[in-house]
Amino acid sequence: MTFESYIQIRERSEQLCANLETEDFVIQAAEHVSPAKWHLAHTSWFFETFVLKPYLSDYQEFHPDFSFFFNSYYNAVGERTVRNHRGLMTRPTTEEVFDYRGYIDEQMKTVLENGLTEEVEATILLGLNHEQQHQELLLTDIKYNLWQNPLLPAVINIKEYLKQEEGGWIKMKSGIYEIGHEGEGFCYDNECSQHKVYLDDFEIGSQLVSNRMYLEFIKAGGYEKPDFWHSDGWTWVQQEAITGPLYWIKQGGDISCYTLDGKKELDLDAPLAHVSYYEAAAYAEWAGCRLPTEAEWEVANRKFSWGNRWEWTNSAYLPYPRYQKAPGAIGEYNGKFMINQMVLRGASVATSPGHSRSTYRNFFHPQYQWQFTGIRLCKK
Amino acid sequence: MTFESYIQIRERSEQLCANLETEDFVIQAAEHVSPAKWHLAHTSWFFETFVLKPYLSDYQEFHPDFSFFFNSYYNAVGERTVRNHRGLMTRPTTEEVFDYRGYIDEQMKTVLENGLTEEVEATILLGLNHEQQHQELLLTDIKYNLWQNPLLPAVINIKEYLKQEEGGWIKMKSGIYEIGHEGEGFCYDNECSQHKVYLDDFEIGSQLVSNRMYLEFIKAGGYEKPDFWHSDGWTWVQQEAITGPLYWIKQGGDISCYTLDGKKELDLDAPLAHVSYYEAAAYAEWAGCRLPTEAEWEVANRKFSWGNRWEWTNSAYLPYPRYQKAPGAIGEYNGKFMINQMVLRGASVATSPGHSRSTYRNFFHPQYQWQFTGIRLCKK
Amino acid sequence: MTFESYIQIRERSEQLCANLETEDFVIQAAEHVSPAKWHLAHTSWFFETFVLKPYLSDYQEFHPDFSFFFNSYYNAVGERTVRNHRGLMTRPTTEEVFDYRGYIDEQMKTVLENGLTEEVEATILLGLNHEQQHQELLLTDIKYNLWQNPLLPAVINIKEYLKQEEGGWIKMKSGIYEIGHEGEGFCYDNECSQHKVYLDDFEIGSQLVSNRMYLEFIKAGGYEKPDFWHSDGWTWVQQEAITGPLYWIKQGGDISCYTLDGKKELDLDAPLAHVSYYEAAAYAEWAGCRLPTEAEWEVANRKFSWGNRWEWTNSAYLPYPRYQKAPGAIGEYNGKFMINQMVLRGASVATSPGHSRSTYRNFFHPQYQWQFTGIRLCKK
Amino acid sequence: MTFESYIQIRERSEQLCANLETEDFVIQAAEHVSPAKWHLAHTSWFFETFVLKPYLSDYQEFHPDFSFFFNSYYNAVGERTVRNHRGLMTRPTTEEVFDYRGYIDEQMKTVLENGLTEEVEATILLGLNHEQQHQELLLTDIKYNLWQNPLLPAVINIKEYLKQEEGGWIKMKSGIYEIGHEGEGFCYDNECSQHKVYLDDFEIGSQLVSNRMYLEFIKAGGYEKPDFWHSDGWTWVQQEAITGPLYWIKQGGDISCYTLDGKKELDLDAPLAHVSYYEAAAYAEWAGCRLPTEAEWEVANRKFSWGNRWEWTNSAYLPYPRYQKAPGAIGEYNGKFMINQMVLRGASVATSPGHSRSTYRNFFHPQYQWQFTGIRLCKK
Repeated sequence: MTFESYIQIRERSEQLCANLETEDFVIQAAEHVSPAKWHLAHTSWFFETFVLKPYLSDYQEFHPDFSFFFNSYYNAVGERTVRNHRGLMTRPTTEEVFDYRGYIDEQMKTVLENGLTEEVEATILLGLNHEQQHQELLLTDIKYNLWQNPLLPAVINIKEYLKQEEGGWIKMKSGIYEIGHEGEGFCYDNECSQHKVYLDDFEIGSQLVSNRMYLEFIKAGGYEKPDFWHSDGWTWVQQEAITGPLYWIKQGGDISCYTLDGKKELDLDAPLAHVSYYEAAAYAEWAGCRLPTEAEWEVANRKFSWGNRWEWTNSAYLPYPRYQKAPGAIGEYNGKFMINQMVLRGASVATSPGHSRSTYRNFFHPQYQWQFTGIRLCKK
Repeated sequence: MTFESYIQIRERSEQLCANLETEDFVIQAAEHVSPAKWHLAHTSWFFETFVLKPYLSDYQEFHPDFSFFFNSYYNAVGERTVRNHRGLMTRPTTEEVFDYRGYIDEQMKTVLENGLTEEVEATILLGLNHEQQHQELLLTDIKYNLWQNPLLPAVINIKEYLKQEEGGWIKMKSGIYEIGHEGEGFCYDNECSQHKVYLDDFEIGSQLVSNRMYLEFIKAGGYEKPDFWHSDGWTWVQQEAITGPLYWIKQGGDISCYTLDGKKELDLDAPLAHVSYYEAAAYAEWAGCRLPTEAEWEVANRKFSWGNRWEWTNSAYLPYPRYQKAPGAIGEYNGKFMINQMVLRGASVATSPGHSRSTYRNFFHPQYQWQFTGIRLCKK
Repeated sequence: MTFESYIQIRERSEQLCANLETEDFVIQAAEHVSPAKWHLAHTSWFFETFVLKPYLSDYQEFHPDFSFFFNSYYNAVGERTVRNHRGLMTRPTTEEVFDYRGYIDEQMKTVLENGLTEEVEATILLGLNHEQQHQELLLTDIKYNLWQNPLLPAVINIKEYLKQEEGGWIKMKSGIYEIGHEGEGFCYDNECSQHKVYLDDFEIGSQLVSNRMYLEFIKAGGYEKPDFWHSDGWTWVQQEAITGPLYWIKQGGDISCYTLDGKKELDLDAPLAHVSYYEAAAYAEWAGCRLPTEAEWEVANRKFSWGNRWEWTNSAYLPYPRYQKAPGAIGEYNGKFMINQMVLRGASVATSPGHSRSTYRNFFHPQYQWQFTGIRLCKK
Repeated sequence: MTFESYIQIRERSEQLCANLETEDFVIQAAEHVSPAKWHLAHTSWFFETFVLKPYLSDYQEFHPDFSFFFNSYYNAVGERTVRNHRGLMTRPTTEEVFDYRGYIDEQMKTVLENGLTEEVEATILLGLNHEQQHQELLLTDIKYNLWQNPLLPAVINIKEYLKQEEGGWIKMKSGIYEIGHEGEGFCYDNECSQHKVYLDDFEIGSQLVSNRMYLEFIKAGGYEKPDFWHSDGWTWVQQEAITGPLYWIKQGGDISCYTLDGKKELDLDAPLAHVSYYEAAAYAEWAGCRLPTEAEWEVANRKFSWGNRWEWTNSAYLPYPRYQKAPGAIGEYNGKFMINQMVLRGASVATSPGHSRSTYRNFFHPQYQWQFTGIRLCKK
């Protein structure tokens, strides 16, 4: 791996924040989101902790307290800020965080130009994938944080809603398939090991559910009757007073939506975004269909186009057969989250270039709407 | 089906409550448990609602308000008491509830002796299985409710802890297996349809984890270090200040436990009970093993004895291929709970006779300890 | 003091519960109310703890655990049940509690017939006043507990709403007055010591605010606009979604209310009941008036009739000059509650005979509605 | 009033923030504190709303949304940001807020130089006192917000702890006194009207309780035993796990404290700061003394020096006789807070010059520690 390939990925994180005001870097509007400043620092902390400290001789850490500030959840690495206090840490300032990134990159340059053992290269590769993962969170968290503000500021020029044609159904035959990652190329431990699954015949949609289709569900009283919802889903709808996807703004008859590029009219022919698993499952039930399993999605994915929305599957996030988590702190990357979350497949408009593949297992708790999540159906 | 077979199952519910004081029937110590009185009435409400009202001509309902009081979660059947207010309903009294049961049984006698259509018989059969399911909840809820009381009263003579021998490992071969219910005999909709699964080679324990083995985990600091826990599990341990299985009483060096038959010394050679999924998974991790999937459990179950504890599996409660929920309110029985819960297999010392089978899918949220839950391991 | 005078007061507690079902004695619908069973036992515990144990030689306590169960808040007397768990204690049963009362009375008979030191007599007198205080709580808590039940049972034959005539204004002159208790006769420590206060001229209403008058306030949008409310009061109205006094039942145009004698039509000419201090103050503001201070109430009380409703004053519950709390556990009776509560003066339809006097200082937190609380106005 | 006198007070608000980083202006660490940015804007909004809009012909408001952002609690002025969301408003930026202040000052210059009606002058005077009140909150809120940060930054050069000598007791005679504001000079409506009170003889301390004295209370187990606490106070201590004044840092045997000027060693001879009313009352009880009433404080204040700490009194914040709140929105300034709060007298090291007087009534809820609050005792 070269420093150029490293720095190209790293720089994207900063480019995404180019239009933010200093104040925008600070806040955390909910426990499950983080401040932009935190993402920028945490991704650097990853390289400092797992590459520079162990492998760069007489490395001087940038600041003794940063490990406390910017460790996310790696218990093995010691104490850390309480998650919902990230938004109260005004120091280190945004400028200091950018200095921190610069310092880390400079040190990483040395490491990368000294030539790498396989072990170090693997860790750096993980760090870059980690950075890309946080680039998507950076976008979704900035969106969620600024959404709190009645001014609905436009901060990042991304087209979130891309038209798509009406789609049909793709027939798949029953039999034994292999899923999971195999061979060369990076993957997370949760994609391993490749293994056989038996699938029945199924039919999967070639297109995502559009805003127009979802609007039908709403008009049919989808959020007013428990009939189509999971029990936990209906409780969520009532307790949180949910009436539609996140970021929809209903004024009179019109529906607009908040995007990173500001308030926009809702494009009815574009794929739906920002629904929770509960909403995805309720919609599927109402439509007389079901959500695909992650295995069905993976074996069929070559037959449809994807990458616009993270697609909720009806598979819980659990280990594959013969799953082994990596030793040490790195092992906390995936395994410990394998409960209470549902798998999403594909990628989204916010996913970093080069960070998607057909075996990728994304996962979130079923109530979250703030990612660019959408719906693909299977016939019952 | 005869009235005798019907009444035999119904009477067991009342026998279980024989030693309760009137006061004991009233309380609800947590939202996820219900008062004994409520179980006795709700199981009768089931027959009134789904059998007597639709199928017995000019049936007179026992009391116009009981449907409101004793509907559990069937939205299609209309309004109901807020779940956590069940324990505040002092009227109808326990005596009235027993009268209600008598009235329902008398009316059911008429139905049963008039000869049954297949449809009615199926519904009654479901009602009896529903009653048996609530008989187990009756025991676990009574235990939880009376556990709040420092007097630790003995109310039901059940031997909760039965010795077992040390066990070994059972080897199973990879290949395609069929799981799920097939053919004659009752099953819930969630056991259907029978379908093929592909399994790799695996080894499963012939015995359950004992109190002695679990105590090792505790002594090794199992509840003090996050290392072995899921992230959500560790949060649970810390927020709820969990230090061991439910109902354990530590005094000095001794450990005793609360049982339905009062306070007992803990039998170290008996199978562990009252652990959450989080604890089961953490123990397995600490032991260098894993929990079985429900498919692994089902294909191997003939090779080991089970029925003493509900066994946490590492499978989320999700629909089988081609799962169809029953039409109408009955359809709310299972399908809508297929999220956020983990499957337990087997049966327990509290399960009613004749209510267990190898395809049975029990399910609870991962934090609950109040059922008779235990651990069976698989090799990694 | 004679045993007859003692037992006459004690028996009233039991008479009040004559129509309760066993189940009704158990529940606790909110943390600030207690189960009927608890009141019956706690008042007996008071005599056991402060009279029998210290003064009756070789007294055998009724049950070793009862002190734990039935201590209310006397920290000096040791551990006690968590307040909001009182409703989960099904044992001791109601019957055992009645046995407990019988045992205590029998022992007290011995004490009372042996002749008393002044100290013991004073403690018994306090115990009887304590019992009478709990008799009123018994009524208000039973009402609150059974109000949860859609059946709205009638359990105690008390006429809660008594008509009154329209009233006028009573003029009082400025000057130095003496308030607080002086001379013979029982009083609580919080009524001492008698002391001088300077009052300006004021005018106080001769009658209480009626349901009719309060209804005007509601119709004028009293609960929809913040204008008349304290800031904390308005927060309370919005968070608790308060739209009127407790126990009012609005159906179409009609207003009925729940009483201990069951559901009744609301008598518009009777004095308003079950309003919080926040509501009393907001009504007064809306009416262009104010609430009296406790000093104003006390100096004027001979000029109007009172005793139908506890009357919210605009005085905070604070110690009088030279206030001394009693030594030992008895000292916890009043002093430690002298913060965050407002003083109520007078008495109510639920107050026990012989338990009211013009210097009596009742006190509750400003949000509570469940006592028989009403409003008397002063001119601004 | 001249523009010079106006601008001199206004400028102090900005001087206090001179050393803050942009990020420091944004956060709100608890619902009861506000972001520095918000204070700077809100005090300007006050002049825009109550002076410029009503009195400056064709005044152009600075920004149509600012009224929504920076209205504090004036319901009569319309919608406003939910209080605990103030810390999520990254826009308007700090720079825009400073521009806003500049714009307001420029417009106020016109108003002030056009000559003022009495009514306008009174409103401006209120606005300046309002600004000074927020200058103290600015200091206490900045301190609370930055205290969350492990770096414990030093941001404002204020000496918080000033030595004082040991003091004695001042004897005051019983009789009628006059308290409350009278005559020329500004005061808030809550200081009116002046009125007679009758006081008994009392003795009040000439000095405040020192850190050394308070430390004795802690060493004596003050936070471990309920004996000295109000019931609500003890609940607060236990639920919030309070073990001492806010901002104390215990490391080994040493005690240091966080100040606006960074971490300092605790000066034992300086007056205690940052205790709640509950702590003040518990300390007084432990010391065999009591807190003064606000009337006692006011009549005795000429005989001792004050101004270093806000002194908790044992008086609830309630209206004086003949209290009239101002008409319109201004009337929301004080009256609606006259419940659930205790009066503090004096002033503190954080009080703006010229903003203190002997009739001043400050008030806070009894659990708050974040103001510069201290203790003065009276003999029982």
